[in-house]
Order: sequence, then C-alpha cells, then structure tokens
Amino acid sequence: MTGKLTVVGLGPGSPQQITPEAMTVIAEASDFFGYGPYVQRLDLRADQRCHASDNREEISRAAAALTLAAQGAKVCVVSGGDPGVFAMAAAVCEAMETGPSEWRDLDVRVIPGVTAMLAVAARAGAPLGHDFCAISLSDNLKPWDVIAKRLTAAAQAGFVMAFYNPVSKARPHQLGEAFDILRQHLPGHVPVIFGRAAGRPDEKIKVVPLAEAQSDMADMATCIIVGSTETRIIARKNKPDLVYSPRSWGGKA
Amino acid sequence: MTGKLTVVGLGPGSPQQITPEAMTVIAEASDFFGYGPYVQRLDLRADQRCHASDNREEISRAAAALTLAAQGAKVCVVSGGDPGVFAMAAAVCEAMETGPSEWRDLDVRVIPGVTAMLAVAARAGAPLGHDFCAISLSDNLKPWDVIAKRLTAAAQAGFVMAFYNPVSKARPHQLGEAFDILRQHLPGHVPVIFGRAAGRPDEKIKVVPLAEAQSDMADMATCIIVGSTETRIIARKNKPDLVYSPRSWGGKA
Repeated sequence: MTGKLTVVGLGPGSPQQITPEAMTVIAEASDFFGYGPYVQRLDLRADQRCHASDNREEISRAAAALTLAAQGAKVCVVSGGDPGVFAMAAAVCEAMETGPSEWRDLDVRVIPGVTAMLAVAARAGAPLGHDFCAISLSDNLKPWDVIAKRLTAAAQAGFVMAFYNPVSKARPHQLGEAFDILRQHLPGHVPVIFGRAAGRPDEKIKVVPLAEAQSDMADMATCIIVGSTETRIIARKNKPDLVYSPRSWGGKA
Repeated sequence: MTGKLTVVGLGPGSPQQITPEAMTVIAEASDFFGYGPYVQRLDLRADQRCHASDNREEISRAAAALTLAAQGAKVCVVSGGDPGVFAMAAAVCEAMETGPSEWRDLDVRVIPGVTAMLAVAARAGAPLGHDFCAISLSDNLKPWDVIAKRLTAAAQAGFVMAFYNPVSKARPHQLGEAFDILRQHLPGHVPVIFGRAAGRPDEKIKVVPLAEAQSDMADMATCIIVGSTETRIIARKNKPDLVYSPRSWGGKA
C-alpha cells in the first residue's frame, strides 16, 4: 500500500506558530481533510485538493481520509493547535480500529503543534507553570457527571485547569455550571483567563477572578485557564498583568 | 527602559519542530540564558552572547537575565519544549515578582513551543485524546504527599497522565513509587509510554503495561504518559502499535 495519512497540527492560528515539519508535510500532500476554518488557513496549490467538512463530523471525516489514503493518496488531516489534544488524531485512531483491516497497515503519522492552552498561557504569563490538567467541557462524548467529578477532583488536588470546547450553541450551560462547581472548592480570587485567537491579530485575553467568571465571556473558540490557590498576579505599569503559577507548592490547597 | 526579555520554547529537539516565531526572536536577541543542553542547540552568531548554566539554577538564571534586560539588552531565555510547562516562564515571573520593581516594567514576552508530552503522544498515536493532566514528579519544589495525592486523584477521576522530571540522580525512587500508587487504582493492562528524544534521530518510544512499568525504564529526559482505563492499543503489521485514548468516555472508571 503506497498511500499515507498524516494528521497535522496547524498551531493556534498565526502562520508564525506552525512548525517547519508541519509545513513540509502540507507541501507534500495531495488531499486535505479538516474542519472548514482550519483547512481555509492553508495556502494550497492548484494540484492539491481540499475536502472541508463541518465540526462534529470527525469520524466520517477520518473514514473518508483513510479511504483515500488506502487508495494511494498522500492525505493530510488538519487540526488547529495540536492534533492529539481533543482533535483529529484520536478520531483517526478510532476509525482505524473499527474500520477495514487494511487501514491499520497504512503509513499513519501525527505531527504535533502548539495547542491552544500553551498559546493562551504564553500571552498571560505562566499560569501552567505548575501541575495542570486539560478538560474538554463538551458533554457530547461523555456524561456531564464525569466532567463534574473531574472538575472537583482537579480543584481539590490543586491542579491548574485548561478548558477546551467550553461552550457551543447546543451547549450554552456547561461552562457556567463548571464555574459554579469550582466556586464550591476554590476561593473567589483565583484568576480565570479567557483566551481567544492567541497570537493572532484579533487576539483577546481577559483575566477575571473566579467569583466574577461567567459563561458569556467565552465562545467555542475560547480556551479557558483556571488557576489554583497558588496562582499569582503581577501588576505592572502600562502593561497587562502577568498571571503565573509558581513552580513550588506552599501547601495552601 | 529599552531592554527586553523573551522566554522562548525550542520545542522537543528537532529543528523541524521550532516555530518561525521562536526563530525570529532568537535572530533578534543579543544574549541567551538557559540550561546548557538547550542553549547548545542554538546556532548563534559571533555577535550573540551565550550564558549557559546548570539545571536547578532557574531563579538565579532568571535574575541574571532580567538584570541584563534592565540594562538595555535584548535577552532571550530558552527552554526546551514549551517554556510555560515546568520550565523558565514561571521562574522568570517568580524573579520579577520578588526582584527590583523596575523588572516588572520590562517588556517581557513568552513564545510557546511544542511541549514534550505532545511530541511523545504524536509518536505513539493519540494517548492524550481524552482529558489529561501533566504532573512534575520532582519533589524539590513540592512535598511528595502532594504528588501522591494528585496521582491518586487523577487515576480515580479517569485522567490520562503525563509525567515530567520523572527521575534524577538525586531522586531515583519517585517514579517507582508513582507506579506503585497508580497500580492501586488502575488495572495492570493500562498502557504506559516512555518517550525520549521524540522527533530526534535518537528517539526512543517504549510502551509497556502498567503492571510491568519500572523506574529504570526512564531517565531525566524521558516524558512518560500513563493511559486511563479507556486507553486502547491498535496492533499493526510491521509497524509500531498505536496507543490512543478515545474521545468518548464509556464510564468504566
């Protein structure tokens, strides 16, 4: 079988944050599969074919990409950020495991990228400087009580948290419920960072105390970082505050 | 004040995984501070000065870099991977908060990079495809009982885990104790990935069941990913197995 499939991370959005490795893979591929806004970032040649699809169609997109690769094409499946974090790499593996056996013998590679929480953290300071976790707030793929249990466990154990997929039109309430759960376990002064389009011209970074955090401060493209009890804010003159989590732990949790 | 300080992530090691943004900042800087092996990766010009230091010297390194920036230099502090994940961005913030007030008004930026767990995950498949956490196993900066509590909480709540700083000459026992704790809460078949030098010519990726995981399978440059009860292995002909965590959660935790 001569075809191959590469799952590529495009980084948070700025062309300056795509790795040379990802650019090389993109230049060598014939067919591109991905969520519309991500494939639209690509500057494809006339001989490269684009197969854009809607979000929530990850498995059918992965299957279509694997089918074409099995026919001999050089296929690229693109994700924003890193493809291994709440993105297409897992969907491709799921499709490979349940699909035709020949898919499992394809040449499949994953090319990492800068995931959203790293880009948002960099713009805020160093909020992920201590132990942290990443949670998708979408309950399309897991029950809400699993999410609620993880939020509680993470807060009680002192993890900083990054939230992906915080809200959508179909899920307007999850983020507010998540903040309510966290307010039961964390003091109101804990910083919450709402980061959108980090590193892009339309970037928005907003920091509020947990006591004032509200779901309407986010949309589906926002990555949210919730500090721990030890996360600190450095106020600066004529510059945005820096938010950081010290490397050491004082044991106040 | 005209000086500035930029904390730059060099990615996991391959030059193909450094972002163009990081390369631009490196080209524009006059002075470089970092742990020896990281600054040695840089291909500096004759007019650029290198200030390498040992690890465990993060705060004095950050203070020296801030001092030079305050004198007007264009200073780069380099980290492997992403500077915000168990690396220099938090150390620079700590030094800024406790140091001379003029340091807080410096132009300070953080440039994100591909952190080790993303590079290791990409080489293994998609083990971070579901909710996960990142824990430094070093007890230099926090008590071991805090680490033990977090391991237990993460296992019980169904998080995949990535371990940074798993062992060192001064800390040979932590990783074995961590596996012992996890074996109390997770079945022995859970996959454990030991990843070293991901993306580099000397790359080593090894996957073993938790029941067989041992601390001597890692050194200080290894990043370890421990799956959840739902993490799966796809066996393939003539190719390494793929390890992935499905996006959905079946509730077996």
